[in-house]
Amino acid sequence: MTQSPNLDVDPQLDLVLERVVDVSPELVWKAWTQPQHLKKWFAPAPWSVSECEIDLRPGGMFRTVMVSPEGEAFPNMGCYLEIVPHEKLVFTDALAPGYRPTEKPFFTAVLTLEPHPQGTIYRVVAKHRDEAGKQEHEAMGFHQGWSICLDQLVAMVKALAPQ
Amino acid sequence: MTQSPNLDVDPQLDLVLERVVDVSPELVWKAWTQPQHLKKWFAPAPWSVSECEIDLRPGGMFRTVMVSPEGEAFPNMGCYLEIVPHEKLVFTDALAPGYRPTEKPFFTAVLTLEPHPQGTIYRVVAKHRDEAGKQEHEAMGFHQGWSICLDQLVAMVKALAPQ
Repeated sequence: MTQSPNLDVDPQLDLVLERVVDVSPELVWKAWTQPQHLKKWFAPAPWSVSECEIDLRPGGMFRTVMVSPEGEAFPNMGCYLEIVPHEKLVFTDALAPGYRPTEKPFFTAVLTLEPHPQGTIYRVVAKHRDEAGKQEHEAMGFHQGWSICLDQLVAMVKALAPQ
Repeated sequence: MTQSPNLDVDPQLDLVLERVVDVSPELVWKAWTQPQHLKKWFAPAPWSVSECEIDLRPGGMFRTVMVSPEGEAFPNMGCYLEIVPHEKLVFTDALAPGYRPTEKPFFTAVLTLEPHPQGTIYRVVAKHRDEAGKQEHEAMGFHQGWSICLDQLVAMVKALAPQ
C-alpha cells in the first residue's frame, strides 16, 4: 500500500518529540503494540495504566484507561489508521473503532521508528485540529509527559530483552 | 492487510443504501475514483459538482465542491481510510488529509461492491457519531439523494462503456 501523504509537521498545529534511544525498533514496536507491555510505560509515573485493549488493524480499537495518583480513571478510546510493523503506527481519537466519528476529537498520533547506529530514532508527532488544541496539549505537559514515558519504555524493554 | 473490524451496521447510528445495479464493480469503482467521472454523478441534479480532488491512498485527500441550483458552493473535505480496488472504499470528514482531526465531523462512509449475476451489489453505509447526526442526514434526504446519484452513476458508466 502506498505511504500516506501530508504527514509533514505543521509547527502551528503539531507537537513533536524526537529522540534517539538505545533499543531496537523491534523492541519499541513490541512495547507499543502488546497491552501487557504498554501498560507498564504508557502513563508517566505516578500515573498508571489500568486497562489497555489493542486490535492492531486499520479501524481496530486502541483503548486505554489512565489512573491518576489520586485514583481517578481517565478512559481514552480511538482507533488505528496505519500499521507498518517496526516503522510506523498511526492512531486517532477522532474516530472510534470501525471509523465512527467521535464527539470530542483531540489529536492524531504518528509514531515513526528509524534504525540508528545507537538503536532507534523515535519520533512522535501529535496532530491537532487547531492551534488551541496544540496549546492545550502543550500546557498539559506533552513534552515532559511523553519524554518520561519514553524513558519508562526504554527501561521496560531493556528489562525484557537480554542485552 | 487484515480487513478492518466493526464495520457492521448500527441501526441507531447508521444509514444504509443497498441496491443491485446492472453495471460491473469495476465500472462503479471507476466512477468513484476518477474526478472527471465522479463530477458527473456525485450530486443529485439539479445540483452539480464543480470541483473534485482525489488522492487515492490512506490519508489522501477527498475533496468536492457541490453547487446548488442557485449557484451556492458547498465544499466538502475529508480523507480516505481504506482502499480495496473494486471492493471497498472508506472515507471520512472527521479527518482532513494527513489524518488531522477536523472541526465538525459528520460521517464516515463505507462503500462496498460485490459481484452479482446482474452486475453489482452496491452498498453505502453512512456512520454518524450520534443519533442526532443520523437523523439530520436522513432529514437532508440521504436515501433519495444517494439513490438519485446512483441512478446518475449507472447512466454515466453505461455511456462510458461499450455494452
